[in-house]
Amino acid sequence: MADIMKFNERGSKTVIENGTVFSPKFDHDGLIPAIATDAVSGEVLMVAYMNDEALSLTLQTGEAHYWSRSRGKIWKKGETSGHTQVVTQILTDCDQDAIWLKVNMSGQGACHVGYKSCFYRSVELSEPGASEPRLVFSETRKVFQPKDVYD
Amino acid sequence: MADIMKFNERGSKTVIENGTVFSPKFDHDGLIPAIATDAVSGEVLMVAYMNDEALSLTLQTGEAHYWSRSRGKIWKKGETSGHTQVVTQILTDCDQDAIWLKVNMSGQGACHVGYKSCFYRSVELSEPGASEPRLVFSETRKVFQPKDVYD
Repeated sequence: MADIMKFNERGSKTVIENGTVFSPKFDHDGLIPAIATDAVSGEVLMVAYMNDEALSLTLQTGEAHYWSRSRGKIWKKGETSGHTQVVTQILTDCDQDAIWLKVNMSGQGACHVGYKSCFYRSVELSEPGASEPRLVFSETRKVFQPKDVYD
Repeated sequence: MADIMKFNERGSKTVIENGTVFSPKFDHDGLIPAIATDAVSGEVLMVAYMNDEALSLTLQTGEAHYWSRSRGKIWKKGETSGHTQVVTQILTDCDQDAIWLKVNMSGQGACHVGYKSCFYRSVELSEPGASEPRLVFSETRKVFQPKDVYD
């Protein structure tokens, strides 16, 4: 079941950008970035990476699978937390080197820290022209406590 | 002005995930992925990459700058097309290895192919259980003609 994308060799730039042949471009580590957004709110939930097998599994099962770079293994989102992601649409971009998943989460949070989205902090300069950026929490409420899920 | 992020060394996992110190993690090529979404509609417009200087310029000017991997240079979005991106918010994720920009576009399209978003095709299996994915155009109307902008 894996390696289904390898059937398709990448053609010319014109074919890649304007055609209907799916030929994802994996980087030199064999990975492609995948953005998951909430299918209802549109909020960006997380950015992760897929290898060929994770992308195949996602297509075949309809549930998001990623490649864990820290653990060096396929990772079905929610396999530990129960917060799985059911994919409603998968898109790719012009040069087919990124994946966008629209998902419905079965649990409350996409982020292992406990927030709904991994993007719970904004980057701000303390004043215009300042050179020291800082982080400001844009989400302050955790939707679950990590110790309840992972311990 | 560049290198402002290098003031901050990355601390422990707890500090990176729960703190207010911005310490973005660039990959072994010195890049961090940046997702741009439409500040109004929430649509994912594009995925690009920033080096330290592009991120600094984006923070300082409020307009999106990226690193062009194909051209090997800093790239102010819209410098050729006129379709600049004014940033309304910059966020980072839990482990600070991705950037999310919410932007207002000054032009019609974010994609050099002519579509509003680079993600104008969805990936679909021809039937459940099939192993051959194909691309289906989810956007069919170009908002500009590339030859009018780039030639």
